[in-house]
Amino acid sequence: MKFKAEIDVMPLEALLDPQGKAVSNSMKNIGLPEITGVRIGRHVRLFVEADNQSEAETKVEEACKKLLANQIMESYVFTVEAV
Amino acid sequence: MKFKAEIDVMPLEALLDPQGKAVSNSMKNIGLPEITGVRIGRHVRLFVEADNQSEAETKVEEACKKLLANQIMESYVFTVEAV
Repeated sequence: MKFKAEIDVMPLEALLDPQGKAVSNSMKNIGLPEITGVRIGRHVRLFVEADNQSEAETKVEEACKKLLANQIMESYVFTVEAV
Repeated sequence: MKFKAEIDVMPLEALLDPQGKAVSNSMKNIGLPEITGVRIGRHVRLFVEADNQSEAETKVEEACKKLLANQIMESYVFTVEAV
Protein backbone atom coordinates (compact mmCIF):
# COMPACT_ATOMS: atom_id res chain seq x y z
CA MET A 1 0.00 0.00 0.00
CA LYS A 2 1.06 3.54 -0.64
CA PHE A 3 0.81 6.19 2.03
CA LYS A 4 1.25 9.96 1.89
CA ALA A 5 2.95 11.76 4.77
CA GLU A 6 2.77 15.47 5.57
CA ILE A 7 5.53 16.56 7.94
CA ASP A 8 6.04 19.92 9.66
CA VAL A 9 9.55 20.62 10.94
CA MET A 10 9.68 23.72 13.14
CA PRO A 11 12.38 25.48 15.15
CA LEU A 12 12.03 24.65 18.86
CA GLU A 13 10.02 27.23 20.83
CA ALA A 14 13.01 27.94 23.07
CA LEU A 15 15.14 29.03 20.12
CA LEU A 16 15.17 32.31 18.24
CA ASP A 17 13.80 32.24 14.71
CA PRO A 18 15.39 35.20 12.89
CA GLN A 19 13.55 34.49 9.64
CA GLY A 20 10.20 34.45 11.45
CA LYS A 21 11.14 37.60 13.35
CA ALA A 22 11.97 39.41 10.10
CA VAL A 23 8.63 38.38 8.61
CA SER A 24 6.78 39.48 11.78
CA ASN A 25 8.37 42.92 11.44
CA SER A 26 7.54 43.11 7.74
CA MET A 27 3.83 42.49 8.44
CA LYS A 28 3.60 46.01 9.91
CA ASN A 29 5.03 47.50 6.74
CA ILE A 30 2.52 45.78 4.46
CA GLY A 31 -0.47 46.94 6.51
CA LEU A 32 -1.01 43.80 8.58
CA PRO A 33 0.03 44.80 12.12
CA GLU A 34 -2.54 42.27 13.48
CA ILE A 35 -0.21 39.44 12.52
CA THR A 36 2.40 38.52 15.14
CA GLY A 37 4.51 35.65 16.39
CA VAL A 38 5.52 34.33 12.97
CA ARG A 39 7.69 31.22 13.05
CA ILE A 40 8.98 29.56 9.91
CA GLY A 41 9.98 25.95 9.42
CA ARG A 42 9.82 23.36 6.66
CA HIS A 43 6.95 21.39 5.27
CA VAL A 44 7.80 18.03 3.73
CA ARG A 45 5.45 15.88 1.69
CA LEU A 46 6.47 12.36 0.76
CA PHE A 47 5.13 8.97 -0.22
CA VAL A 48 5.98 5.72 1.52
CA GLU A 49 5.33 2.12 0.49
CA ALA A 50 4.34 -0.01 3.50
CA ASP A 51 2.10 -2.93 4.46
CA ASN A 52 -0.02 -0.95 6.88
CA GLN A 53 -0.49 2.43 8.58
CA SER A 54 1.66 1.65 11.59
CA GLU A 55 4.59 0.42 9.45
CA ALA A 56 4.30 3.59 7.34
CA GLU A 57 4.38 5.74 10.49
CA THR A 58 7.48 3.92 11.74
CA LYS A 59 9.30 4.59 8.46
CA VAL A 60 8.34 8.27 8.43
CA GLU A 61 9.46 8.61 12.05
CA GLU A 62 12.81 7.06 11.07
CA ALA A 63 13.16 9.43 8.09
CA CYS A 64 12.48 12.42 10.36
CA LYS A 65 15.02 11.31 12.96
CA LYS A 66 17.76 10.37 10.48
CA LEU A 67 17.42 13.03 7.81
CA LEU A 68 14.55 15.49 7.83
CA ALA A 69 14.82 17.12 11.26
CA ASN A 70 17.72 18.18 13.43
CA GLN A 71 16.35 17.28 16.86
CA ILE A 72 18.77 19.59 18.66
CA MET A 73 17.11 22.60 17.07
CA GLU A 74 13.84 21.38 15.59
CA SER A 75 10.69 19.50 16.46
CA TYR A 76 8.48 17.65 14.00
CA VAL A 77 4.91 16.46 13.70
CA PHE A 78 3.44 14.40 10.90
CA THR A 79 0.30 12.79 9.59
CA VAL A 80 0.20 9.65 7.43
CA GLU A 81 -2.74 8.62 5.29
CA ALA A 82 -3.33 5.90 2.69
CA VAL A 83 -3.58 7.13 -0.90
CA MET B 1 -10.00 37.45 19.46
CA LYS B 2 -6.73 35.75 18.74
CA PHE B 3 -6.39 33.12 16.04
CA LYS B 4 -3.57 30.78 15.15
CA ALA B 5 -2.82 30.04 11.50
CA GLU B 6 -0.82 27.11 10.13
CA ILE B 7 0.28 27.70 6.54
CA ASP B 8 1.97 25.28 4.12
CA VAL B 9 3.78 26.88 1.18
CA MET B 10 4.87 24.29 -1.41
CA PRO B 11 6.58 24.43 -4.81
CA LEU B 12 4.00 24.00 -7.60
CA GLU B 13 3.66 20.39 -8.82
CA ALA B 14 4.69 21.44 -12.33
CA LEU B 15 8.05 22.71 -11.10
CA LEU B 16 11.18 20.80 -10.23
CA ASP B 17 12.11 20.67 -6.56
CA PRO B 18 15.87 20.00 -6.43
CA GLN B 19 15.95 19.98 -2.63
CA GLY B 20 13.20 17.37 -2.49
CA LYS B 21 14.89 15.35 -5.22
CA ALA B 22 18.16 15.31 -3.27
CA VAL B 23 16.33 14.13 -0.15
CA SER B 24 14.50 11.42 -2.15
CA ASN B 25 17.85 10.12 -3.37
CA SER B 26 19.33 10.21 0.13
CA MET B 27 16.51 8.02 1.48
CA LYS B 28 18.01 5.05 -0.39
CA ASN B 29 21.38 5.62 1.27
CA ILE B 30 19.94 5.65 4.78
CA GLY B 31 18.05 2.38 4.25
CA LEU B 32 14.62 3.81 3.45
CA PRO B 33 14.12 3.05 -0.27
CA GLU B 34 10.34 2.82 0.37
CA ILE B 35 10.21 6.61 0.65
CA THR B 36 9.77 8.46 -2.66
CA GLY B 37 8.41 11.67 -4.13
CA VAL B 38 9.75 14.00 -1.46
CA ARG B 39 8.84 17.65 -1.94
CA ILE B 40 9.98 20.36 0.43
CA GLY B 41 8.34 23.69 1.12
CA ARG B 42 7.86 26.00 4.08
CA HIS B 43 5.63 25.76 7.09
CA VAL B 44 4.60 29.06 8.68
CA ARG B 45 2.85 29.43 12.03
CA LEU B 46 1.51 32.83 13.05
CA PHE B 47 -1.04 34.54 15.26
CA VAL B 48 -3.59 37.05 14.04
CA GLU B 49 -5.85 39.38 15.99
CA ALA B 50 -9.33 39.61 14.39
CA ASP B 51 -13.00 39.98 15.28
CA ASN B 52 -14.03 36.64 13.85
CA GLN B 53 -12.85 33.56 11.95
CA SER B 54 -13.66 34.93 8.51
CA GLU B 55 -11.81 38.22 9.13
CA ALA B 56 -8.81 36.22 10.39
CA GLU B 57 -8.86 34.08 7.23
CA THR B 58 -8.97 37.19 5.04
CA LYS B 59 -5.91 38.62 6.80
CA VAL B 60 -3.96 35.36 6.52
CA GLU B 61 -4.88 35.12 2.82
CA GLU B 62 -3.57 38.67 2.33
CA ALA B 63 -0.33 37.86 4.18
CA CYS B 64 0.19 34.78 1.97
CA LYS B 65 -0.41 36.73 -1.25
CA LYS B 66 1.69 39.76 -0.29
CA LEU B 67 4.59 38.22 1.57
CA LEU B 68 4.64 34.52 2.44
CA ALA B 69 4.21 32.83 -0.94
CA ASN B 70 5.46 33.56 -4.43
CA GLN B 71 2.44 32.55 -6.45
CA ILE B 72 4.45 32.16 -9.66
CA MET B 73 6.32 29.25 -8.13
CA GLU B 74 4.42 28.22 -5.03
CA SER B 75 0.97 27.26 -3.81
CA TYR B 76 -0.29 27.63 -0.26
CA VAL B 77 -2.94 26.13 1.98
CA PHE B 78 -3.78 27.20 5.53
CA THR B 79 -5.97 26.51 8.51
CA VAL B 80 -7.07 29.12 11.03
CA GLU B 81 -8.35 28.35 14.52
CA ALA B 82 -9.23 30.43 17.56
CA VAL B 83 -6.79 30.15 20.48
